[in-house]
Amino acid sequence: MYNISSSSKTPLHIQLFKQLKQDIEQNFKAGDKLNSIRKVASLYNLSKNTVESAYSQLVAEGYIESYPKSGYLVTDTYYKDSQTTISSVIIQENEKENYLYDFIPARLEKGSFPLKLWKRIFTKVIDESLDFGTYSSGQGEFALREQIAKYIIQSRGVKCQTNQVIVCGGLADSLSILARILHKTHNTLAIENPGYYVAKNVFESFGYNINKIPLDENGISIEALNLTNAKLVYTTPSHQYPTGVAIPISNRLKLLHWAKDKDALIIEDDYDSELSYDNRPIPSLQGLDKNDKVVYIGTFSKSLCATLRISYMVLPQHLMKEYNKLYDAYFSSVPLMMQKTMEHFMSEGHWDRHLRKIRTLNRKKHNLMRSLLKDTLCNTIKIESSGAGLAILINPTVDFDWDKLKKITKEKKMKLYFAKDKSGGDWEAIRMGFGGFTEKELPLAMKVFFKIWEQCIVK
Amino acid sequence: MYNISSSSKTPLHIQLFKQLKQDIEQNFKAGDKLNSIRKVASLYNLSKNTVESAYSQLVAEGYIESYPKSGYLVTDTYYKDSQTTISSVIIQENEKENYLYDFIPARLEKGSFPLKLWKRIFTKVIDESLDFGTYSSGQGEFALREQIAKYIIQSRGVKCQTNQVIVCGGLADSLSILARILHKTHNTLAIENPGYYVAKNVFESFGYNINKIPLDENGISIEALNLTNAKLVYTTPSHQYPTGVAIPISNRLKLLHWAKDKDALIIEDDYDSELSYDNRPIPSLQGLDKNDKVVYIGTFSKSLCATLRISYMVLPQHLMKEYNKLYDAYFSSVPLMMQKTMEHFMSEGHWDRHLRKIRTLNRKKHNLMRSLLKDTLCNTIKIESSGAGLAILINPTVDFDWDKLKKITKEKKMKLYFAKDKSGGDWEAIRMGFGGFTEKELPLAMKVFFKIWEQCIVK
Repeated sequence: MYNISSSSKTPLHIQLFKQLKQDIEQNFKAGDKLNSIRKVASLYNLSKNTVESAYSQLVAEGYIESYPKSGYLVTDTYYKDSQTTISSVIIQENEKENYLYDFIPARLEKGSFPLKLWKRIFTKVIDESLDFGTYSSGQGEFALREQIAKYIIQSRGVKCQTNQVIVCGGLADSLSILARILHKTHNTLAIENPGYYVAKNVFESFGYNINKIPLDENGISIEALNLTNAKLVYTTPSHQYPTGVAIPISNRLKLLHWAKDKDALIIEDDYDSELSYDNRPIPSLQGLDKNDKVVYIGTFSKSLCATLRISYMVLPQHLMKEYNKLYDAYFSSVPLMMQKTMEHFMSEGHWDRHLRKIRTLNRKKHNLMRSLLKDTLCNTIKIESSGAGLAILINPTVDFDWDKLKKITKEKKMKLYFAKDKSGGDWEAIRMGFGGFTEKELPLAMKVFFKIWEQCIVK
Repeated sequence: MYNISSSSKTPLHIQLFKQLKQDIEQNFKAGDKLNSIRKVASLYNLSKNTVESAYSQLVAEGYIESYPKSGYLVTDTYYKDSQTTISSVIIQENEKENYLYDFIPARLEKGSFPLKLWKRIFTKVIDESLDFGTYSSGQGEFALREQIAKYIIQSRGVKCQTNQVIVCGGLADSLSILARILHKTHNTLAIENPGYYVAKNVFESFGYNINKIPLDENGISIEALNLTNAKLVYTTPSHQYPTGVAIPISNRLKLLHWAKDKDALIIEDDYDSELSYDNRPIPSLQGLDKNDKVVYIGTFSKSLCATLRISYMVLPQHLMKEYNKLYDAYFSSVPLMMQKTMEHFMSEGHWDRHLRKIRTLNRKKHNLMRSLLKDTLCNTIKIESSGAGLAILINPTVDFDWDKLKKITKEKKMKLYFAKDKSGGDWEAIRMGFGGFTEKELPLAMKVFFKIWEQCIVK
């Protein structure tokens, strides 16, 4: 006997469906016949429609079938072993470890994102004229691509037209697109060693072989590259990751000649070149190229906000055909709202102003960290790289107890970052990020670091 | 002679740098010596610092080098052939074709997105407490995952804990993650034929072999699946793409048994099951599984907004280890701001309310289209699939001139969608999307369609 109550919040046909289902699971076997709709309606004083709805749902879920002349029969009882209880237990995940002093090399101050401005633009430009009813262009909104093109042409010397710009959701997204469109023609990626692990990982996941090319004092060794058969190379020419080397003009041209001679392609990752403190940023490699051999990749993550997930890529014209073929049915990974807000943020001049502000702010902290390092640690350290980005790279010049360093920093809740941990290879340096500290916090954190450093020098 | 003007907006050292650079490019050869800093300062009445800055930039870009005792010498002249003019020409792309009547099967009405509400939540919850200074968890924010878990447990019968939920940027993103973490153990994907082309494309791009499995009246043929060696299958059990078949309970259990027997994995794409009009949505396959053999994938694209780019995936616990290993250093592809707004949209009950509203709205249009089709085209059509999603699938039951259909619709600026075009295989149907029309527009568009249909019947 079912319990169907008209005072319940659950609709009648659902109450009936649930109880019928339970009844079938517990008491019926395959081929058993259900009461007719008319009979059930009369038994429980329900409308015929209500019972029909319940039966229809049982049919849809495959519990019963309707046979002409026979009525509704239970399907095979295979489902009997499937009775499960749904666990709604939600467990809390472990909290991330909390550090007192975190020298993370890829972060900006918490308050540096222009939140109020962003919100103002967002509420102003996100309106009914935008189509939220369907997917938007995989390549990104034209107006945003236009802004990006203008910016990289002016500030980075990139040569491009708006139709070559692709809006991406971060470096890994850009590289995945590339790995897909190049796979017909390439199966090996040459990469700087040490180099950026994300590039290696992405191309490996698409089945590429990885060819590690050593660095010399001018960045990637073109001699070593020439000895391989690679026709595709990933490089960070303006600020090598992690060593910080910039490829000088003569080697840039050699690299472009290599690409021309071998009919090869260069992926230029220009990830943080806008953060240059000692000199003006070096113009892009792509801008020097006359043979359409460079893919240019940039991002807003380093100077504006990493969690916006907006980056961009410029493809040579000859790759656009394959791109359009493969990505015809794809959708941009960047939400329309974010694209629209970013577009106006740029077109109204806020991006340029923000860049100047963020560069000045980080230059101050960079200079402060560099002079503190030099003045306090004197000749016990070597500065491997400085002048750009969000970290200064150092190594000890004296006998040094690395294990002790790791032990004490852990005790003191200090987080340090080491080049080797992520880039592979033998090249080591401590990557001292300054971007996340305020100007006030930085000297305090450095003071604690200096004390630890002292203790790790082997005397 | 350089032209350095203190009344220019360009800083002095940049004016000097640019003119030096041009001079070197045009008039110097490798090894040529530049004037000393002191001399240039005196010649142009500049401070020594200004000249040093300009020289330092030339060194950084590799034009000159500093040699002890010799001063600044021009590096090799390799770069001479690189002089290029930066093209700032920005060309307009071709506009998308504009249709008068677009029966697109995957869209909602333009005004159906709750824009005002979204903006209100956005401005309320996006505040300084959020950390925009660095990358956020690759798996997605815990609080959003918690909301998603609650929703799919309650509405879809999914069994999961919050730590199994991954926030993704759309189906292709979910599938790419899966293709990566399964690649060590799987190299073949079985997929419904006809089936969803995006799934096929993504796995192919990661080097998987594709094994096409035919459908029978109960969805994917488990007999055919059993004849293969595949240990991984992609399926849309609640609303097969494109045929609309739902797998009944008995076959769901057979599919789960297959996975258990073969130690295989099922990818359940539950893309639009919340849009069910004739019956309540069928509970998920994942919820029936007792052996951790199902990956569950869902999205907000079909009922809320496709350009939000938010979807989700539930991994079996045994895959979390590989996921955490591979995605340890990755960042969520969904912007923190969107995650936070979505979280509050759900936790404040708006998502449930919106779902009810959107389901009612589309049920009306679905029923209207279905009765118009039946009443007007009578026995010249067969409805292949209806009752769910955003389209009704039809085929002619009479001799029909398909070429004429394509010709006339083009003339009348009407866009129709055909199953074969994207899914491959022999299965054909016209996918009549109703989601994009308003209730007023729909009968008008149908009227035009009916006229065209009449003309294409071969008499």
